[in-house]
Amino acid sequence: MQLARVVGTVVSSRKEPNITGLKLLVVKPLDEEGRETGNALVAADAVGAGPDEVVLVAAGSSARQTEATDKRPIDLVILAIVDSWSVGNDVKYRK
Amino acid sequence: MQLARVVGTVVSSRKEPNITGLKLLVVKPLDEEGRETGNALVAADAVGAGPDEVVLVAAGSSARQTEATDKRPIDLVILAIVDSWSVGNDVKYRK
Amino acid sequence: MQLARVVGTVVSSRKEPNITGLKLLVVKPLDEEGRETGNALVAADAVGAGPDEVVLVAAGSSARQTEATDKRPIDLVILAIVDSWSVGNDVKYRK
Amino acid sequence: MQLARVVGTVVSSRKEPNITGLKLLVVKPLDEEGRETGNALVAADAVGAGPDEVVLVAAGSSARQTEATDKRPIDLVILAIVDSWSVGNDVKYRK
Amino acid sequence: MQLARVVGTVVSSRKEPNITGLKLLVVKPLDEEGRETGNALVAADAVGAGPDEVVLVAAGSSARQTEATDKRPIDLVILAIVDSWSVGNDVKYRK
Repeated sequence: MQLARVVGTVVSSRKEPNITGLKLLVVKPLDEEGRETGNALVAADAVGAGPDEVVLVAAGSSARQTEATDKRPIDLVILAIVDSWSVGNDVKYRK
Repeated sequence: MQLARVVGTVVSSRKEPNITGLKLLVVKPLDEEGRETGNALVAADAVGAGPDEVVLVAAGSSARQTEATDKRPIDLVILAIVDSWSVGNDVKYRK
Repeated sequence: MQLARVVGTVVSSRKEPNITGLKLLVVKPLDEEGRETGNALVAADAVGAGPDEVVLVAAGSSARQTEATDKRPIDLVILAIVDSWSVGNDVKYRK
Repeated sequence: MQLARVVGTVVSSRKEPNITGLKLLVVKPLDEEGRETGNALVAADAVGAGPDEVVLVAAGSSARQTEATDKRPIDLVILAIVDSWSVGNDVKYRK
Repeated sequence: MQLARVVGTVVSSRKEPNITGLKLLVVKPLDEEGRETGNALVAADAVGAGPDEVVLVAAGSSARQTEATDKRPIDLVILAIVDSWSVGNDVKYRK
């Protein structure tokens, strides 16, 4: 999984019927210091994440192992909202 | 998933029987500002996308979870045409 | 999928029994201008591709969705020989 | 698989029910000399790994092939604690 | 698949029961000229590969399609020992 920040939303009216009802959010992966790194990705939301929240995303077939995404053409899912993470003895982020 | 722009088409007459009938489009991934980033990829079209349209693509086994691509040797599918996306309060793209 | 060029062959006599009979080709991914980009990969051939031909390759579990590769430990398959591709109004390659 | 070092922990109270009870650790991939390389990732722990330990991680659908992660939306798992590794005749790491 | 060279070994006594008995080797991917490229990876051995041998590795779920790795949390397998490979008319490697 990767740490990521929710930075935006995607709206689509013409889409595969199999993704209807899913909320699609723009996320940016974070490094262990909480800095945005790499390109924006689009994830389906399985936990009710909101703007600016720090989340965990899972990719690939694992992204389909939630009730919200089961058997859907989804390759990235938000599976948790992060309360905090630490590296060594340093708390790097607290909600 | 990734934001991408449809930039071209691929024609093939000698191919695995299992992909017959699929439209294959050249797409370029986009960053959150809408700039093309990274190398061109080829995606199967599940939603009737056309040239220059901004789309969402899903990769890996998730690319086979549409009616058009089920059980086919397809590792990238266009699963939605994007109407708009926003980052923070800025609309970065509107169709 | 990715555009690629067939640049070579691999010979192996000691191998997993499950890949016996497959032709293994060295391929180089191409960008949308037809330039080689990134490292060489080795793909199983499902369509009778030959040296210097431009092909489409599919990766991951999708590489096993052909008759030639079904249930085999193959993570990259050549699934089509490309006749031509275009970007915008420019034909970038014609066989 | 990749060699990695456990560098931290992630805490989340709002998450997909399907990951409840899993310990989520921040890991950094290591090169063959034992130097951290690339971005931090988050892995589910299947072997009771602790801080600063060197571990092996498996990604993708393979990350779900442990008792701890079966059918869960987990794309990275710690599947072994490394005692030592060698390159050529040099022991590069010993616990 | 990727060409790679076996450069080392990994020893682990505390591990997921499901990988018991597998030999884990450190491999370095090779480019088409036979030069090491990218970071070291760890692969399960399905063919009895030894130090310094040039091999083919398959990644992802395809790494589980061998008798040695079936249903195991393995995301990289050595599936062949390479006798030779050629690019164009040049033999780049011969065992």
